[in-house]
Amino acid sequence: MAGRAALGKHLVAELWVRDPRTLDDAAGLEQALLAAAERGRFTVLDRKIHAFSPHGVTGILLLSESHLAIHTWPEYGYAAVDVFSCSGAPWEALEELKERLDVEHIEVRELDRGLLRSVGAGSLRLARHR
Amino acid sequence: MAGRAALGKHLVAELWVRDPRTLDDAAGLEQALLAAAERGRFTVLDRKIHAFSPHGVTGILLLSESHLAIHTWPEYGYAAVDVFSCSGAPWEALEELKERLDVEHIEVRELDRGLLRSVGAGSLRLARHR
Repeated sequence: MAGRAALGKHLVAELWVRDPRTLDDAAGLEQALLAAAERGRFTVLDRKIHAFSPHGVTGILLLSESHLAIHTWPEYGYAAVDVFSCSGAPWEALEELKERLDVEHIEVRELDRGLLRSVGAGSLRLARHR
Repeated sequence: MAGRAALGKHLVAELWVRDPRTLDDAAGLEQALLAAAERGRFTVLDRKIHAFSPHGVTGILLLSESHLAIHTWPEYGYAAVDVFSCSGAPWEALEELKERLDVEHIEVRELDRGLLRSVGAGSLRLARHR
């Protein structure tokens, strides 16, 4: 990766699940996030889970490595997941969530965060430290 | 936007500031996040700020609309900012942060989250609800 040192990796994931009820279970989602953090070898500093009325849950883990977040729309069977980490195993954390939420379809965008030196003309818009 | 209904908008921003000390001021960053949320017309449910040793701050606002997060690397003059919102004015929120942190350079990727119907072959990998 000559010329491209990134401070963090950010997995932006779109999860579509088989059973939307899993996306309205705040306690279950909290456990899933914690299990994901463990599998990703992240250190959890703090956590916040909020259940919306009539449905939907937001859960965020504050990590030493950055953050792990989930926002759910049970009415669409959809969950937005962010795994932002400057170390550890973010893809393993995402895999844990995928298994626990019985995901039918997933799309992931893998973003570099804090690129210290940009490459030349590319398809991505890269941060330049100047 | 026929054929492309998204549940949320996610601004993934890379900020490079003039004075790195602003990135190590946890209280100042908390105020900046709250001001950004106000300007973005977001509802703050909860907030968490953590100052790392020897430097660096993580701040997350839990929003009714999703989340607003900042992770700083003062040693590089860099802050990773995420504005993830299903309503309100995310670009305005980001503008507030940009002003308060005296940003020298910024790169933003604007991502749709939870696309309910995918378009045909495109450059982005889109989520499909099926």
